[in-house]
Amino acid sequence: MSDQGVIGVGIIGFGIVGQGTYSILRDNAETIERQVGRPVRVVSVADLRTELLKEKLDPNVRASADAEALIRDPDVHIVCELIGGVNPAGRFVRMALEAGKHVVVANKELLAKQGPQLLELAEKNSADFYFEASVGGGIPIISPLRIGLAGNQIEKIIGIVNGTTNYILTRMSGEGGSLEDVLREAQALGYAESDPTNDIEGYDARYKITILASLGFHARLNVDQILCEGISGLKATDVNNARDLGYNIKLLAVAKRTPDGIEARVHPALVPLSHPIASVSGVNNAIFVTGDAVGDIMVYGPGAGGMAAGSAVVGDIVEVSRNIVSGSNGRLKTLEFRDLPVQATGDIVCRYYARMRVEDHPGVLAAIATQFGDCDVSIASMVQKTAEDGVAELVFLTHEVKERDIQEALERIRQLDDVDEICSVIRVEE
Amino acid sequence: MSDQGVIGVGIIGFGIVGQGTYSILRDNAETIERQVGRPVRVVSVADLRTELLKEKLDPNVRASADAEALIRDPDVHIVCELIGGVNPAGRFVRMALEAGKHVVVANKELLAKQGPQLLELAEKNSADFYFEASVGGGIPIISPLRIGLAGNQIEKIIGIVNGTTNYILTRMSGEGGSLEDVLREAQALGYAESDPTNDIEGYDARYKITILASLGFHARLNVDQILCEGISGLKATDVNNARDLGYNIKLLAVAKRTPDGIEARVHPALVPLSHPIASVSGVNNAIFVTGDAVGDIMVYGPGAGGMAAGSAVVGDIVEVSRNIVSGSNGRLKTLEFRDLPVQATGDIVCRYYARMRVEDHPGVLAAIATQFGDCDVSIASMVQKTAEDGVAELVFLTHEVKERDIQEALERIRQLDDVDEICSVIRVEE
Repeated sequence: MSDQGVIGVGIIGFGIVGQGTYSILRDNAETIERQVGRPVRVVSVADLRTELLKEKLDPNVRASADAEALIRDPDVHIVCELIGGVNPAGRFVRMALEAGKHVVVANKELLAKQGPQLLELAEKNSADFYFEASVGGGIPIISPLRIGLAGNQIEKIIGIVNGTTNYILTRMSGEGGSLEDVLREAQALGYAESDPTNDIEGYDARYKITILASLGFHARLNVDQILCEGISGLKATDVNNARDLGYNIKLLAVAKRTPDGIEARVHPALVPLSHPIASVSGVNNAIFVTGDAVGDIMVYGPGAGGMAAGSAVVGDIVEVSRNIVSGSNGRLKTLEFRDLPVQATGDIVCRYYARMRVEDHPGVLAAIATQFGDCDVSIASMVQKTAEDGVAELVFLTHEVKERDIQEALERIRQLDDVDEICSVIRVEE
Repeated sequence: MSDQGVIGVGIIGFGIVGQGTYSILRDNAETIERQVGRPVRVVSVADLRTELLKEKLDPNVRASADAEALIRDPDVHIVCELIGGVNPAGRFVRMALEAGKHVVVANKELLAKQGPQLLELAEKNSADFYFEASVGGGIPIISPLRIGLAGNQIEKIIGIVNGTTNYILTRMSGEGGSLEDVLREAQALGYAESDPTNDIEGYDARYKITILASLGFHARLNVDQILCEGISGLKATDVNNARDLGYNIKLLAVAKRTPDGIEARVHPALVPLSHPIASVSGVNNAIFVTGDAVGDIMVYGPGAGGMAAGSAVVGDIVEVSRNIVSGSNGRLKTLEFRDLPVQATGDIVCRYYARMRVEDHPGVLAAIATQFGDCDVSIASMVQKTAEDGVAELVFLTHEVKERDIQEALERIRQLDDVDEICSVIRVEE
């Protein structure tokens, strides 16, 4: 490992992304070397599963359970942190940056929670810190935001950024199954983790929209300020109702620049079947970006998988290597330079779908309509879905209303004697 | 204009892309400066229409008809060539690169014909040469191929890369109008030029697939070796037949790496309605890239327009400026390093749609089928579309066949006494 010219890569975490990264760097070594001008080689891998390393790695690659030794290794110029999560990943990243090593991660949680601090630390140490694989798997979206679209004021980002929930929603829409049944199948197929909380509750999508919005709007966002609703409460009835009304339900991550600051939210939403985002199916991701100059563009592709994410990690490694060769590490500056407030949830304006069960008496609809009207909620359409045993199911679609107004209206409606239950309230994105 | 830190941009050619570039750099100056670390400013514009310049430019921008003086201007660090065409654009680009100026172009014809030579010239002079706007307007596709997907062996690129023809095909499919009628309307709306040859005959798309294939496969391609058929012969009947069979007709640009070299072609093709590319409508472009690691990804958006293309030009200017700030111009190496042959047209394997008019006699179909069979052309389906005045119209869909086999079969069929005319032969892309 003493080749003068070799750019040495160290991989911490040998899960599916680590293994994908390793195999791409090995199998496409020649193409990569030609593009960089010097060989780029994995010289060291750290993972607690040392048996796995022994089995999978070429014998000339150092294998150990000691990530800190890997970081200190003078042959390692680029540290790939592919463990995920905040601890100990964040500690390893900081240690590497402080040692002046360049760092590539696929870690959306770490980026969303500590991205600005880590970018500053990198800048202070003239080190590169790249993270293309943190959003959208292998789809190029981070570098287009930092490079190709750099001349734009980004106005809006809307994405399907979680493959697991999109797979579940695609299945529910196609077959009418319940969330529980489809989730069980997705787990059996490896499309959902045994503890699916991060995906199902929207946390994963929230990390990702935090990263995209920070880059797109050049602003520092607090992940906890972003409205986040998952799909855990979603009923097959609502998926089917949506289809009947001409919509698919998707878990959307949305960020908009408004005169009042940034509007950012993650939630299931009814999307018109005619919109391209409604036909993004299975584990695919799609991200729409609107810029003042470019207009609307979309990137689309597999949002997960070891090879797809590995492709993004290796793309970053190639860029960092080019920076090493040309002596320009640190050429991408810290981008969060604006202080934009995140809009209060109550001020968000949306259309809504609401389904409720009511006693089938004369005057019920009038009572409900009065409450909506009193709270400035304007109804676009209403369908009575079923009526049996004296109970009717009503589905309302509203015009655009403020979050706080619809919540107030629903609270009042809930207290009406003839209203048994407000079953579902889902946003509509046109 | 003596600010020490200003990075000076000179624009040659003040058409819609030049004006878009100018206004983006002016309106988003602060965002761009923050990302680069130094102000980036248009200091000089050259165009023969000096009255236009006087009307549109700020008074502190130098305006002249003299592109060579602009190139020699020591305040101009980045030359944007936005005239298009090979002459005099190529001369200006070479002059700028030889003077060590960095160059950004939106010029697909120049790139397709002289790209490798210009990239070498840039490298020799440690100058940057960027061209994101040459393909796909504002959609980032060049930099993803050079950066985000750099770890992949690219296997296939399929695109709708010409907005004018896609607009025409969308209208023909939607309304059943003739090419001539729709083209006239497109010209009236400004979606097609008064001389639409470059778009209609597929030359524009051929330039673009040459650029994409060169980058994707790291190979030097000769634009003249690429099969090129436009849409000028397309009949409304075929567009309607295609719809009935479950297809849209699109002008596709296709490049594949095969064991025998590169297969590259531009032609109208029947695309199944279920494929996302079939629903790319209007002046939009979409490019699908398949890499061995990433799988299938797509980028989509407006393929033309001054602001969209300007967005890509400014993205390049930002990158070049970052290179200036970090002293790393020339960090992207010349990429064409492989010597891959372009496959002979006769060896291309495709499915085909063929429509012919025949005498409605017993035995005609048998005679045609015999010729197809003798030439190894296997028929997937046949529809008899009309039969009047003793003349029948037959539509065949073949299985996959070699180009030279189908041509031989069609030649033989053309000579049958009962065959009046082979009206259309169009490829089918699954």
